[in-house]
Order: sequence, then C-alpha cells, then structure tokens
Amino acid sequence: MNYHSMSAAELGVTRDELTDLYEKLRAAGLSLDLTRGKPAPDQLDLSTPILSLPGDDFRDPDGTDCRNYGGLTGLPGLRRIFGELLAVPADQLVAANNSSLEIMYDLTVAALLHGTPDSDGPWSRQTVKFLCPSPGYDRHFAICEKLGIEMVMVDMLPTGPDVEQCAALTAADDSIKGMWLVPMYSNPTGATVTEDVLRSLLTMPAAPDFRIYWDNAYAVHTLTGEFHEPLPILQWAAEAGNPNRPYVFGSTSKITFAGAGVAFLGASADNVAWHQQNQSVSTIGPDKLNQLRHLQFFGDADGVRAHMLKHQELLAPKFALVARILDERLSASKVASWTDPDGGYFVSLDVLDGTAARVIELAKDAGIALTAAGSAFPYKQDPNDRNIRIAPTFPSLSDLETAIDGVATCVLLAAADSLLASAEN
Amino acid sequence: MNYHSMSAAELGVTRDELTDLYEKLRAAGLSLDLTRGKPAPDQLDLSTPILSLPGDDFRDPDGTDCRNYGGLTGLPGLRRIFGELLAVPADQLVAANNSSLEIMYDLTVAALLHGTPDSDGPWSRQTVKFLCPSPGYDRHFAICEKLGIEMVMVDMLPTGPDVEQCAALTAADDSIKGMWLVPMYSNPTGATVTEDVLRSLLTMPAAPDFRIYWDNAYAVHTLTGEFHEPLPILQWAAEAGNPNRPYVFGSTSKITFAGAGVAFLGASADNVAWHQQNQSVSTIGPDKLNQLRHLQFFGDADGVRAHMLKHQELLAPKFALVARILDERLSASKVASWTDPDGGYFVSLDVLDGTAARVIELAKDAGIALTAAGSAFPYKQDPNDRNIRIAPTFPSLSDLETAIDGVATCVLLAAADSLLASAEN
Repeated sequence: MNYHSMSAAELGVTRDELTDLYEKLRAAGLSLDLTRGKPAPDQLDLSTPILSLPGDDFRDPDGTDCRNYGGLTGLPGLRRIFGELLAVPADQLVAANNSSLEIMYDLTVAALLHGTPDSDGPWSRQTVKFLCPSPGYDRHFAICEKLGIEMVMVDMLPTGPDVEQCAALTAADDSIKGMWLVPMYSNPTGATVTEDVLRSLLTMPAAPDFRIYWDNAYAVHTLTGEFHEPLPILQWAAEAGNPNRPYVFGSTSKITFAGAGVAFLGASADNVAWHQQNQSVSTIGPDKLNQLRHLQFFGDADGVRAHMLKHQELLAPKFALVARILDERLSASKVASWTDPDGGYFVSLDVLDGTAARVIELAKDAGIALTAAGSAFPYKQDPNDRNIRIAPTFPSLSDLETAIDGVATCVLLAAADSLLASAEN
Repeated sequence: MNYHSMSAAELGVTRDELTDLYEKLRAAGLSLDLTRGKPAPDQLDLSTPILSLPGDDFRDPDGTDCRNYGGLTGLPGLRRIFGELLAVPADQLVAANNSSLEIMYDLTVAALLHGTPDSDGPWSRQTVKFLCPSPGYDRHFAICEKLGIEMVMVDMLPTGPDVEQCAALTAADDSIKGMWLVPMYSNPTGATVTEDVLRSLLTMPAAPDFRIYWDNAYAVHTLTGEFHEPLPILQWAAEAGNPNRPYVFGSTSKITFAGAGVAFLGASADNVAWHQQNQSVSTIGPDKLNQLRHLQFFGDADGVRAHMLKHQELLAPKFALVARILDERLSASKVASWTDPDGGYFVSLDVLDGTAARVIELAKDAGIALTAAGSAFPYKQDPNDRNIRIAPTFPSLSDLETAIDGVATCVLLAAADSLLASAEN
C-alpha cells in the first residue's frame, strides 16, 4: 500500500511490523557487501587463460620483445582492438598500466603543475572548477577534493548531463576547466549519453582548456546482450573545432581482471603528445607483457565482445533479481524508485527524501554494507539524502537475494519512521 | 705512450694514424647501442617461468584472490622478500606497479601539491632545491627539471656523496628539500655509499622535510658474486631522530623483466601512511597478479640471490671485456680513466677534459650510440665535458667488443686533436 496515503495509525502498525522484520534481519548476523563494483569470482574465471600467458611467446605481432624496456604508448595491436571499441583511432590511443583512474589523476596533476597545451599557465595559479554530473562516480569527485578543485554539481539525466545547466555554467565562467562523465551505463544511474547531448557538450562555449573526462568504463559492459556503438567523440570534437576538449578513458579492469588489466587514454594528437611528454619523465613505459597477455587472449574486438557476452550471462540474472525484489517489496509503497540499467555495474536506488543515510545505517547494523551515504555526490553531500548506490555484481545470487531483501526492509522502515514523524508533528 | 708527453709532431702522426683508424671504423657501417641500462635477451630468458605464472594458482599464500580489486600496499609475501633485500621492515615496504621512477615522481608531486607530513605547506609555494650527487642518474635529474626543482650539484665520490658539501648546503639552506642517491653500484660510477657517509647524511642538519631518495636500484646486482648487506637506512634514520628523512626504492626491472617487474617503496610508518593516503585517490591498487608471479618465482630472498648469480654469470664477462679493451687501448695514453664496478649496470668513462661531447659525436657518426653528453649531470651540463656513461649489458659480447674498441678510437682521436690544438696555440 502507498505509504503516503496511510493514516498515522496505519503507519504505526506498518512501522511495528517492519521493526519486527528488521530485528529478525539483524538477528541473522549477516555479513554481506554491496559497496563496490567488483567482479564476482565466476566472472574472473572467464579470463583464466590469461593467467598462463604469454608463455614462451613474448613478442608482439610487430616483433617487440615485451620483456624489455621501450615504448611509452603501448602495444599497437592492443590499441587497435580498444580503439575500435572506444571509437578512438589507434594512433590516438595510449595503452597504459592497470588504472584509468591513475591516468585521470595524472592528467589533472599535469594541468595543475604545467597547464594544458591550451592553458595560459598552470591551473594551480587560479581557481579551478569541474562540473560534476550527479549522481556520479565517487572516485572522480575524490580526485577533485584531493587536488583542491571546486566541484560544481549539475544534474545527471537519463540522456546524460543537463546540457543547459552545463552550457550556462561554462559560458559564464572560464575557471570551469573540466567535467567528469561516465558516458555509457553511467555509475551509478546507468544513463547513456545521447548523440544530441554529446554534440552540445562539444560545441558549447567554454574555456579553451576545458576538458571532458569521458570515462567510458563500461563501453562494452552490456546487460542485454546488445552492444551500443560508441560515439565518435574525438572526431566530433575535432569537427566542432574543439579537438582537445575530450579525454577518453577505458580499462579492462571489469573485462579481465580487476586491478590487473590494461587502461587506455584516447585524445587528440596534441593531447596525446603532451601526455606522453609528461609521462616520459615519470616512467620508462607501461607493462607491455600484461598488454601482450590481453592481446593474445582477445585477438580482436570481436573477441572482446564475445567475452563480454559471457559476463552478461553471469550478471544479467543478478540485475534481474535486484529488479524483481525491489519491485515486489517496494513498488506498492511509493517511497522508492530505482534504475534497471542496460549495462554497467550499478543500480541507483532513490529512497524517501531524507532517509538514505538512515537506510544505510540500518543496513550496516544488520550486516549489509552499502556505499556510504552521499557517495555519488560532490563532497559526499546528497542534497536530498535519498540516493543509494547498489553494486550487485560481487555477491552470489543467494547472498544478493538476502541482501536486497534486507535493504528493502530498511528502506521501508526508514520511510515509515520518517512519515510517522511528519504525521505526528 | 702518454699523450701528454708527446711533441706536437708526435701528436700529429698519432692523430693521422687515429684518423685512418676512425675512417675504417666509420666505413664498417656499425649500428651499436651503448646508451641505456637494458638487460640482454639472455638475461631475460632467466625469468622465462614467470611468463606462464601464476597459472591456476591465483591466490597468494594469505588467501587473497589476486585477480580482483583490493590492497594498496601489495602482497605481504613479496614485501617480506624485498624487505629483507632492501633492509626495510616488510610492514614499511609497499609493493607497487612496474616503475620505481613513477613512485619517486609521485612522491615529489605530492610534496609540491600538498607538502610532506613535515612541511609547513606545499613545496610549490616556495623555492625547492635538490642535491644532485654527480655524475648521477639522468632520469632523477629530469624529474627535477620537469617539476621546476632547482638542482644543486655535489660531488659523487667513491664512498658516496661528498658529505661535507652536502651538510654545508643543507645546514645553510632550508629550501633544500631533497637529494637523489643511488647508494649501491651507483649509476654511473659504481660507487657504494659507506656506513660513515650514510650516518652523516642521516644526522646532518637539514630542513625537517628534507628527503633522501635512496634509489637502491642495484641492491642485489653483484658483478663479483658477493652480496653486500644493505645498510639499514630506515633504522638508522629513526635512531638519528630523522625517521622521515629517507625514501627507499627498489625494483625488479633488472632482476626479472625490464618494465614488467615490481617496484617498491620503503619508508617510515608516517611516510608510508601519507603515501598510501595520496595513492588511494589516484588508483584502486597495484597489479597484484604480477606481484604474485614474482612471489611464486622467487619463493624467498635466497631465491632472488640465486637468480642474481645467474645474471652475474652473464654480465661479468661483459664488464671484464670493457675493462680489458679500455686498458689495452687507453691506459698508456693517460687521457682517460674509467670505473671497474663490483655491481650495477654501468661503466663511467672520463676522457680528456673538454672532449666528451666530441667523442660521443665521433662515435655516433661511426654508428655507435652513447648516452648524450652531460647526461649524468644536472641540466645535462658536464662542467668538465669529460664524462661518458657506458652501458655494456645489452649488446652481445661480440658487438660489445666492436663498440668499445670503436669508442676507444674516438677517445684517442678526440684527445689527440685537442692536445694538438693546445700545442699549436
């Protein structure tokens, strides 16, 4: 029944029932974790052959001995594969070490210390602000916080960031130098940026050194079995006269092994040259053997797609389970809404305004770890205290069922409490 | 015959003979490279088993699934092994990705942006200088140059840096915040820091946030078959009341695979905590699978030592060859001196003052690539234009013989020319 239509008495009865249910949940002594987007062991098993590669075959198809120094940009063969999947020409794609986050951090630090090729000077000499479509990815926001970059929240819509908000801000304020964006199956809402939104982001007036951090972490992470064609952001940026505006990121962390994959940076020729020049000071080069393992394992872009369909087979039932339980337990109450994404790693759950932190606390006390309240917002401040990010990939189906059912109980209990408090005032 | 004792006529005859020799060398159309400290293919072959690891055994001895996210400090088992070899307690040693240079760069950037735990504020707000014992490692100096850190040259003696120079400088100038140092089989002179020198460096008055970058890149890279006990720098620093002064670096790049190894940082508990806090923003963690490969391959510290003796068997003949040819070709002339190191990757050749750049140019024209003139000095300025770094590890014995013999010809020709020019003036 719709909680908003209940009388105070009805709410009281419901609250007492839910309290009983919650106490049973607590008594069960669970220890379940829905916090991070981690692949499950059966997903990692899909890449088992990599664990024995490259074997004796330590040269890449171009003849490079991958056991020795040399080559800052990474293996051409692997760059071709992921260039196709990320819509980046292979010669503008750099294959790096194991962390795309690290590349984002390094690019931002380099701009702070030296300025970008389009900057008047180091960003550190002025106020720097980044647009933060929210809900968004907490680790993006943590980079801003660490580096003293002011975060300006804009709304993340089902079509991508609110471009009118973005354009109004960048046109008015040259200190806006960057924007975070997970363009496909976004973390956490699952939104995918449309062609129109992207064209607006690439053409809108902005500082010459304004950068879109196009973190295409889930480019091939379909939950439906269909693959979206990636938008050719670099080409469109060049056509728009802003070739240096986008940085494209990708990674195999959720394709092969989390933390032992290969990360990628795609950008204009100028941006790539600038990045390589910076990198040449801090490292002799990336781990080419790990790149070779990935090249040998995939063979080509279709090899990646075939591999991702195996992930999809394992993950789709988990997301379906979450959708089913949330629907069964929460739909009638009208105190929550949630996403049912076509790809990616997360379900975004909006609970009754003002109760998200309480829900997360209740769940924690019952042994169910959820991402900290406000995590998907700049400075960890959810303006409505309503968003909860659910990461359903790591637990087994059985644990996931228990956990989501438990979360649903917490959502309803917090809502009943909150509504009752309002009714009594 | 001693060139310095020759008459102008004798020098002229000698110069003409050397010119003939040099023209024959040029006509040979060589293409040989003595520039970088790269392992040779037969050295890389010593680590072939790693290429098929970890196989199905993807858990470390503590049970960690190394295929998934988690753990910023790296695998405890591997940290124990290299802790023993670097004289760092395992809980103060971080195992990272493939590049110790990257750790040095990141630590310096973090100090510039945020200051160290002992700094008043970010280094970037003030003039920052580093002591640069020279000849030294060009990539250290490149970090300073890139980051706008002023380099102050001090002499590198056979016992380590000139501690009187160092102490006078740090006592007088709080803006001296760092010091580069390869403490064992130094790049390029092969010097090893003595106990007395280290104790002086740890006790000398200096800014509270003065840091010694103790880049122990060649800790186990013996050329004699004997292993030096590493100096317990962190323990001595703590005893001296300056626990945060040293950063210890190590890497397996020249133990297993160059650019596909594991790098290490050792430091005080405070420094490690500070570094981990910074790292937690820029990465989710290091590549644990590659750490696991190394752990499985070595087993323990004795496994590393046994492995290094195999390198020694391959490398000692190359260094002996260099010593023999330089002795045969150059000793009598008295226009050059060179090191005969007990370990490491380099021979440092000092030629007649004012002729190093010319020698390198002559060699280049004859198809023998040497490290650029001045590379071992801050700002690439060799004050005496006399130092040449020779990296004998990568070429085959036969190529190395040809190359060093060719270099000797260039050394003598440049010296004869120079002395003749002086004699004629």
